[in-house]
Amino acid sequence: MKSLISVRDIGKKEVEKILKKASSFKEGKEERLEGDIVLLFLEPSTRTRISFEKACRTLGLETYTVLGESSSLAKGESFFDTLKTFEALGFRGVIFRVPFILFPYEDTANALKLSLINAGDSTHQHPTQGLTDLFTLREAYGSLKGLKVLYVGDITHSRVFRSGAALFGLFGAEVSVSGPKTMIPRDIHVFGVKEVFDNVDEGIEWADVVIWLRLQKERQKENLIPSERSYFEQFGLTKERHKKLKGFFMHPGPVNRDIDIDSSLLYSEKSLIQEQVRNGLFIRMAVISWCFTDK
Amino acid sequence: MKSLISVRDIGKKEVEKILKKASSFKEGKEERLEGDIVLLFLEPSTRTRISFEKACRTLGLETYTVLGESSSLAKGESFFDTLKTFEALGFRGVIFRVPFILFPYEDTANALKLSLINAGDSTHQHPTQGLTDLFTLREAYGSLKGLKVLYVGDITHSRVFRSGAALFGLFGAEVSVSGPKTMIPRDIHVFGVKEVFDNVDEGIEWADVVIWLRLQKERQKENLIPSERSYFEQFGLTKERHKKLKGFFMHPGPVNRDIDIDSSLLYSEKSLIQEQVRNGLFIRMAVISWCFTDK
Amino acid sequence: MKSLISVRDIGKKEVEKILKKASSFKEGKEERLEGDIVLLFLEPSTRTRISFEKACRTLGLETYTVLGESSSLAKGESFFDTLKTFEALGFRGVIFRVPFILFPYEDTANALKLSLINAGDSTHQHPTQGLTDLFTLREAYGSLKGLKVLYVGDITHSRVFRSGAALFGLFGAEVSVSGPKTMIPRDIHVFGVKEVFDNVDEGIEWADVVIWLRLQKERQKENLIPSERSYFEQFGLTKERHKKLKGFFMHPGPVNRDIDIDSSLLYSEKSLIQEQVRNGLFIRMAVISWCFTDK
Repeated sequence: MKSLISVRDIGKKEVEKILKKASSFKEGKEERLEGDIVLLFLEPSTRTRISFEKACRTLGLETYTVLGESSSLAKGESFFDTLKTFEALGFRGVIFRVPFILFPYEDTANALKLSLINAGDSTHQHPTQGLTDLFTLREAYGSLKGLKVLYVGDITHSRVFRSGAALFGLFGAEVSVSGPKTMIPRDIHVFGVKEVFDNVDEGIEWADVVIWLRLQKERQKENLIPSERSYFEQFGLTKERHKKLKGFFMHPGPVNRDIDIDSSLLYSEKSLIQEQVRNGLFIRMAVISWCFTDK
Repeated sequence: MKSLISVRDIGKKEVEKILKKASSFKEGKEERLEGDIVLLFLEPSTRTRISFEKACRTLGLETYTVLGESSSLAKGESFFDTLKTFEALGFRGVIFRVPFILFPYEDTANALKLSLINAGDSTHQHPTQGLTDLFTLREAYGSLKGLKVLYVGDITHSRVFRSGAALFGLFGAEVSVSGPKTMIPRDIHVFGVKEVFDNVDEGIEWADVVIWLRLQKERQKENLIPSERSYFEQFGLTKERHKKLKGFFMHPGPVNRDIDIDSSLLYSEKSLIQEQVRNGLFIRMAVISWCFTDK
Repeated sequence: MKSLISVRDIGKKEVEKILKKASSFKEGKEERLEGDIVLLFLEPSTRTRISFEKACRTLGLETYTVLGESSSLAKGESFFDTLKTFEALGFRGVIFRVPFILFPYEDTANALKLSLINAGDSTHQHPTQGLTDLFTLREAYGSLKGLKVLYVGDITHSRVFRSGAALFGLFGAEVSVSGPKTMIPRDIHVFGVKEVFDNVDEGIEWADVVIWLRLQKERQKENLIPSERSYFEQFGLTKERHKKLKGFFMHPGPVNRDIDIDSSLLYSEKSLIQEQVRNGLFIRMAVISWCFTDK
């Protein structure tokens, strides 16, 4: 029984195991596990929650869903006590999305006889998205060695960036970022970032592949950006920028149409968006299988 | 693979196929389908959602539920992109209730490898309710040829009326309406309506069967009705009116007790309300089967 | 087909049957039932809802979940009409948590071909919690004959107290209470309570076992308590009081940490909290089985 809370807890060898499992699931391999899983999603989510639910059920696991306001956490119960309850009820694992940063977490994980799988904890980590993006890049480009990856958008609030950048670095890619100055964390170089492009067009020129992030309007309380229109013009994927892309582009979804990306380009031949969703399912099956069966 | 978004897209022959399937399910026929279905309900619903969920599971389909505020649509994702996500995740169909009118929709439906089943799109259509009411009337009266059907209430906001009236017309019924002037659309004759009764008692005298609609308090933003008490007295099913009914009465539910219908009459011998709920399950099984298996 | 709405409706013999079934489930006995169950939870709940859902599914029953704001009750449908809908859809039972008191209920229950299981109706009853606590006490102490049980906290709003106290009395225990004066109902002796301790420490000295209740902050509209800090100091389980406990302590969950109970004591060797959750599952399986199979 393992947990996956941050990609920083697993080395290259474990990541390879997960990717290999995902490949075999994509090729149609079947596997049957037994047990009951809680999907505890305290923040809105469709693709991640349904993808995890389908992953569990395809593997033969029974799923129980607990969403935001309907949970005991709404009555003030601590997250740890909620997990203890699931443990006492005989669950094998909890897949969770939470609005707070889970850090440090080692004591929590060790005190429980449960697999914990992080499906997004505030701005901290979203390991299965990072693994999905790694898997998708590898399918598209063969190897990440020397691959130039540019993240564009709200880097500060992005758990997708934090999870992906660490993994891509592990496999030899070069990661740069671009976005409004107010959305680039001061300690950006901690994440192994090569360059910060104030001008996204210079970044696009540099990059082999570009990952647009979602402008998280719900986290932009301080109103640090002039307007959505101006954000799109300065950093969004416009028709002009689309022509200049050397390779593919990605987006973890959900997309803000005509803010992150021009509506007409979402499903263009350069887009890996649908492939990311497709691969997400196999990565999640792989992570669950790795948590439950890997020694 | 078919979709059902509006009753106006299917002719008499297709309707007959669906009704026949529903009859056979009601008689106990079993059928097994395979695949995963999303129930995407962005507006509150119990009977329709649970009826569809039971229909799917009885047919052997796996259901995944996504409700209003817990969905990516709450984060601003477009409906089309949400559907694209379900397609990439390998779903076979999406059954949806949405707070907006889906029109036109041909391009959306054609761009997706998914069956789309409309479980209510704002004030536009609710095809399985229309089919349920048609099926229930046929069971009760044998044929709709020349049957006089009166809808009472908020015609303007009623997708139940829009779906039912079109179907009843197709099968030879005469449809009239009655309700407060502010709740009758100006273009009412577009719907093939025979007469508009300002006085509901005259309508009741004319009708063989009366369908009361729910006063949709949540859509009455403009406060066009004097009071619920006065609405009940002018248009509701009172004990006096109940005595004068020539035949059965119906209501799609949920009922506003003592506003739409007097509490004591809900389950009277003239009421088809429970039968509508019962038949709704078989109609939904039939529609799903028709979408997935009919050539 | 039976219902369980209040523990006051079942005598000692029926309770013994349920406890015996729960014991056998805890020892690993399997049982297979058939049919569809609605879990209708109009108030937030994790442990009770998930416990019931797992109980149903372990017994082979299909579960359909309807939560608060997504239901027709949000549109103003009456509780009875919602139940009638489930009946027409072919369900076998409805397990419900509701924000109102269900009393009287005999006419409702008799008018429906459904098993109704109360999972908490406002401040009135929560029979499976009472049965769980009875079962847990019996496991811990062998017999309840002469056992001194103290409930601490908001007695007035506690359905857990109302359900437990009646059952413990039936099996020969003595029940006392302690809490702020504003939280002790005036008619407390109706419940067979032996003593009201204004000073919780005197109560603790008297008791063999103490059950702390959750301070239901959401029901404290009148702000009758000076502060959470002061509540904890006057009535909470502090480290000092924990040392003085003669036996075990319990809490139905969810716990307000450092208001009801000191955080560090939640899972101490004197705590039966986890055991209550564990036993809750078997009690719920037993109640469902008793409702559906017992003659």
